[in-house]
Amino acid sequence: MTTHALFTLLDLIGTFAFAISGAVAAHQKKLDLFGVISLAYVTACGGGIIRDICIGAIPPAGLSDWRYLVVAVIAAGLVISMNALVRRLSHPVLLFDAAGLSFFAVFGAHKTLQFGHGIGAAIILGTVSAVGGGVMRDLFLNRTPVILQKEIYASAALFAAAFLAIAEEVGWSLQWVPWTAIALCFAIRYLSLRFNWNLPRFSDDKAERG
Amino acid sequence: MTTHALFTLLDLIGTFAFAISGAVAAHQKKLDLFGVISLAYVTACGGGIIRDICIGAIPPAGLSDWRYLVVAVIAAGLVISMNALVRRLSHPVLLFDAAGLSFFAVFGAHKTLQFGHGIGAAIILGTVSAVGGGVMRDLFLNRTPVILQKEIYASAALFAAAFLAIAEEVGWSLQWVPWTAIALCFAIRYLSLRFNWNLPRFSDDKAERG
Amino acid sequence: MTTHALFTLLDLIGTFAFAISGAVAAHQKKLDLFGVISLAYVTACGGGIIRDICIGAIPPAGLSDWRYLVVAVIAAGLVISMNALVRRLSHPVLLFDAAGLSFFAVFGAHKTLQFGHGIGAAIILGTVSAVGGGVMRDLFLNRTPVILQKEIYASAALFAAAFLAIAEEVGWSLQWVPWTAIALCFAIRYLSLRFNWNLPRFSDDKAERG
Repeated sequence: MTTHALFTLLDLIGTFAFAISGAVAAHQKKLDLFGVISLAYVTACGGGIIRDICIGAIPPAGLSDWRYLVVAVIAAGLVISMNALVRRLSHPVLLFDAAGLSFFAVFGAHKTLQFGHGIGAAIILGTVSAVGGGVMRDLFLNRTPVILQKEIYASAALFAAAFLAIAEEVGWSLQWVPWTAIALCFAIRYLSLRFNWNLPRFSDDKAERG
Repeated sequence: MTTHALFTLLDLIGTFAFAISGAVAAHQKKLDLFGVISLAYVTACGGGIIRDICIGAIPPAGLSDWRYLVVAVIAAGLVISMNALVRRLSHPVLLFDAAGLSFFAVFGAHKTLQFGHGIGAAIILGTVSAVGGGVMRDLFLNRTPVILQKEIYASAALFAAAFLAIAEEVGWSLQWVPWTAIALCFAIRYLSLRFNWNLPRFSDDKAERG
Repeated sequence: MTTHALFTLLDLIGTFAFAISGAVAAHQKKLDLFGVISLAYVTACGGGIIRDICIGAIPPAGLSDWRYLVVAVIAAGLVISMNALVRRLSHPVLLFDAAGLSFFAVFGAHKTLQFGHGIGAAIILGTVSAVGGGVMRDLFLNRTPVILQKEIYASAALFAAAFLAIAEEVGWSLQWVPWTAIALCFAIRYLSLRFNWNLPRFSDDKAERG
């Protein structure tokens, strides 16, 4: 399997996992068929579209490549027709989701650098590629984005994007840099799920006493 | 009346109907004067602005053509000063809204193709042109976008955008293609209002039993 | 102090005040560390990023200049570690916020004109530069944007952007134009806070009786 094929595979796996998460959330809120497909698509492609608009990659890949829309439609169809099954598979879906998170963060940071922008932009836009779709899903469903509230999710993406951006700027253009970044992000995310790690949160009370 | 004048007329009618819907929603939520004008403008121009950003039409038409802002201010003024009248006219406003929906979907798909992008982008961005403003209105008013929940609204726009995009790609550059697409979308929307058609929705219970 | 240094100072003061307001709101909603930093950054830079995307200034300044992210991180750190102190300083923070509002409105309108766009775009995007971040903060926190509901806030920004845009188009390229616009916006905002001025709001009852 060539590197390019592996990249495409990871991209589609991540897109699929994100689309499933959007479709499940839309289905729970009892949206109609159009709503479920839209939310699957937005969750899967929203982050990448924001990244592409910001770096000047027009039209955004999520719009110009028809495969993303097909993946979203398939995910929506699966969730609608086999909802009970999808729920039982929530554990593998979480693993796919972690793979998508890792891949999107690293690929997003890489694409930003390739379009000639700086490290700062690469770190922010790598993170946005990975978590932007989930944030849009939550906004559409009228709730505060989960990733801003708990779990080590966005921070794992941020770490991977920063690792990739700094390594590429330093000149480590070796093959293994993106794979290491992806593996690190996946490991952090997996362990935080496994052991229920969280970033610190600050209640007003504690802060006032402190 | 030339085709161009008819296009401009449909554009302004649609903009006006969308602005009315934004202003009415803002007024019901008791926003202040600035809030009512902003929501009228965002509902009328939001979808087109997202489309123009995605296809690289900078600056977006909603920003560069002062007539859109004027239409939004007039709609806001009407809603504020003649609220009772506007409510009594809700039926004609729904017809104007259906005209706007049809025109924006078809024109959005056409503009996307003209900027050199593919069929997939044209279908998605035609739909976004037509429904994006309404989605932004609902996000600002802190509710799940209505178009994701019920009624054949976004799907009528999607159908018209797809019809136009496929016909233009196949090479039917005949004059009647856009008008047919507009008429079809308007008819679908009108009939769904008249007979209360909806897309299927899926309750969790049913899905689990199924 | 040169004009350029003064501009930079005002820009950073405004960014800091906006970041504080985002971090305080995120902290109150008990978001985690990543959430507090994200909301500080989005509130400070969101409006400018939308403006830059619309005028074609790619990549947006909020992404390419690392100082904005640093300011957001510092503001988040202050709010987390010294929450009681920040609350006691709410009065100076409001003054900084008014300075930021004035500067962003005027600078946003100026930058839009410099990129070759018209007066209408300059007025709208000047206002968006000043209030867009606050709107995004409120969307993320799942509430209707405050600026659409009450207080003379967005309207002060709109006034300053319009003053600057019209003066520049008329050809008054004199040094004092931006400073006058900034001073006017700051004064309007300060007086509206001091005397609790509001734009008119329209209850449905009154409107129906009228």
